[in-house]
Amino acid sequence: MSGTAIRSGSVRTLALLAQQVGKPVPEVETPAVIVDLDQLGENLKELQTYADEQGIALWPHTKTHKSPEIGRMQLEYGARGLTVAKTGEAEVFHEAGARALLLHYPPFGQAKWERLADVVADGAELTISVDSAAPAEGLSAELARRGLRASILIELDLGLHRTGQTTSDGAVALAREVSQYPALDVVGISGYPGHCRGTAETIRSRLEASDAFLRETRDAFLAAGLPCDRISGGSTPTRFLTHETCVNELRAGTYALLDRTDGTEETAAVSVLVTVISDTVANQVIVDAGSKTFTSDDHPDGGHGIVVGWPELELEALNEEHGYVSAGTSERPAVGERLRIVPNHACGCVNLHDGLLAVRDGVVDHVIEVAGRGLVR
Amino acid sequence: MSGTAIRSGSVRTLALLAQQVGKPVPEVETPAVIVDLDQLGENLKELQTYADEQGIALWPHTKTHKSPEIGRMQLEYGARGLTVAKTGEAEVFHEAGARALLLHYPPFGQAKWERLADVVADGAELTISVDSAAPAEGLSAELARRGLRASILIELDLGLHRTGQTTSDGAVALAREVSQYPALDVVGISGYPGHCRGTAETIRSRLEASDAFLRETRDAFLAAGLPCDRISGGSTPTRFLTHETCVNELRAGTYALLDRTDGTEETAAVSVLVTVISDTVANQVIVDAGSKTFTSDDHPDGGHGIVVGWPELELEALNEEHGYVSAGTSERPAVGERLRIVPNHACGCVNLHDGLLAVRDGVVDHVIEVAGRGLVR
Repeated sequence: MSGTAIRSGSVRTLALLAQQVGKPVPEVETPAVIVDLDQLGENLKELQTYADEQGIALWPHTKTHKSPEIGRMQLEYGARGLTVAKTGEAEVFHEAGARALLLHYPPFGQAKWERLADVVADGAELTISVDSAAPAEGLSAELARRGLRASILIELDLGLHRTGQTTSDGAVALAREVSQYPALDVVGISGYPGHCRGTAETIRSRLEASDAFLRETRDAFLAAGLPCDRISGGSTPTRFLTHETCVNELRAGTYALLDRTDGTEETAAVSVLVTVISDTVANQVIVDAGSKTFTSDDHPDGGHGIVVGWPELELEALNEEHGYVSAGTSERPAVGERLRIVPNHACGCVNLHDGLLAVRDGVVDHVIEVAGRGLVR
Repeated sequence: MSGTAIRSGSVRTLALLAQQVGKPVPEVETPAVIVDLDQLGENLKELQTYADEQGIALWPHTKTHKSPEIGRMQLEYGARGLTVAKTGEAEVFHEAGARALLLHYPPFGQAKWERLADVVADGAELTISVDSAAPAEGLSAELARRGLRASILIELDLGLHRTGQTTSDGAVALAREVSQYPALDVVGISGYPGHCRGTAETIRSRLEASDAFLRETRDAFLAAGLPCDRISGGSTPTRFLTHETCVNELRAGTYALLDRTDGTEETAAVSVLVTVISDTVANQVIVDAGSKTFTSDDHPDGGHGIVVGWPELELEALNEEHGYVSAGTSERPAVGERLRIVPNHACGCVNLHDGLLAVRDGVVDHVIEVAGRGLVR
């Protein structure tokens, strides 16, 4: 009754993807997630250039691609370090060669504190964000036992109402408490402006309010004699407004691949190749990819992706392995025909796949391994 | 710039999960997907007993668990064969030892036809469903070249309007066409009553209409001199009504694990262990699992799961790595406290994970490998 003799899905998948290398895109076995290397390079370069010009340190969030290869590209373009959410992601990007890591997530539990201490012991410069004392206290105890140190950002709730201290007084009090733990250096504050979405006007007005809270808290830190050199913020929708705020470290993630939500058919470096497998229902075709390929992450306008080159077609609904493409009264692609679809959400889509096909000039160049896939612990 | 030197996420995950074996559930590192072995056994036994009593052949759909171990359990309980959706799943369950496989999905493309022929050449008794000629023609050509055979079910659209022939005449015409291909035997019809959801009354009335279409088509097959011994249908919501229909092969899948949508807190064999990591926002706590652990698959009543033992708490929203648990004005669990949550959708949740922790009497017994995870090709 043991499954151990069975080759795992990721081994099978990577072997199958390796067979696609060298093929022109129209011959790739579907469904397949492809990354346009030129567009990826443009996206990385555009934000790095902006950050360099504005004197902002770029700390790309790797949750989007979970790929050592793309993380290394971001560092080579000039990122100061890489951001991760989970301890397992810290481990994989440390192994990939990132010297500086920001775990923008409170780690809880002895196992995680030990794993993070292992990463520091192995040479990583680690910063973590916290919004309560317990994760910091536990990590400090483990680091102190081993003569190691890490840096701390106190997280603020900028308006998303997810995590983060909600007042400057609360942030100062927490910073004071954390400063007393032996192995931690409080170095600043952070926040995630995830509520800054929508029209340009909405984004700007919400970001201004977020910035006011960050500035107020920075001033309170300085008045209290607490260091506040690092102010970490940013998101993909707000990334090019960062210079108008006090934020000096930018953690955008999705900007690398982009998608239907944060990009366009032209700027998205990621898309999904699918094949039409059924056309028995009027005004509709079914493609060979559903929520297990795209994710069921939704979009405010409905639908699940942009069907490239077929503006009349809409990927209207997903079952696990079926995509419902509505054609209205338009011409429909035939069974066996291929479509390329920009997904709603790059991060959720990529996290379903052990590898992505890296494409240059219409040919599969190599497989980008998603080595951080599934590392939720 | 190659990622090949990096240990993959699945290798890391399985190593970490192996460390949890022997631990009591409250000591397991979170987030973790656990399977209650006793409840799993009860769910498998209940449906197998029903099928045996009614003389219905059970062909469990493996998409729910994607685990060779659970597939083997289903065969040992008495399943006639295993159902899969994708060619990669056929490969993994063949390797797991399933002699009879039903690919209830039209395979398209030379690569898939070759891979399926390999499975047949290696001894599998393969049935596939089709709703158009092209997949059958391609598979037949490959099988014929190698002196192999497979069985065919003609799929009907029972009302979900996804795949399947929409008239009996169309089904007969397709069966006649497919019968002329050299390596295929048409053996019957199939359908998926995925639209039979909702109240007991809705389920029953829609299932009756589906059954009328199946019977009409069966009679048309027999009148046309076409074999129709096998009538494949069923779903988890309709599973115990199968004996009232003409269906003699049942493909339920979710019944093995169940979930918030198709089960209850008591009958679900799968749940997710999480830890509270933040409580800074009033009337809310944040847990360490989001859409990358639960999936973003939704539920008609909203929310993302049942918080076991805390009826006042609701898992209201998910970000990628954050779960928003709303407490209203009730007592809240503290940072560091653990919760156990039954997910909306077992199939989507399990597909995110390389392994599940099999629990008996509150202790982790072993890791169930999800070797079919991610096999969308």
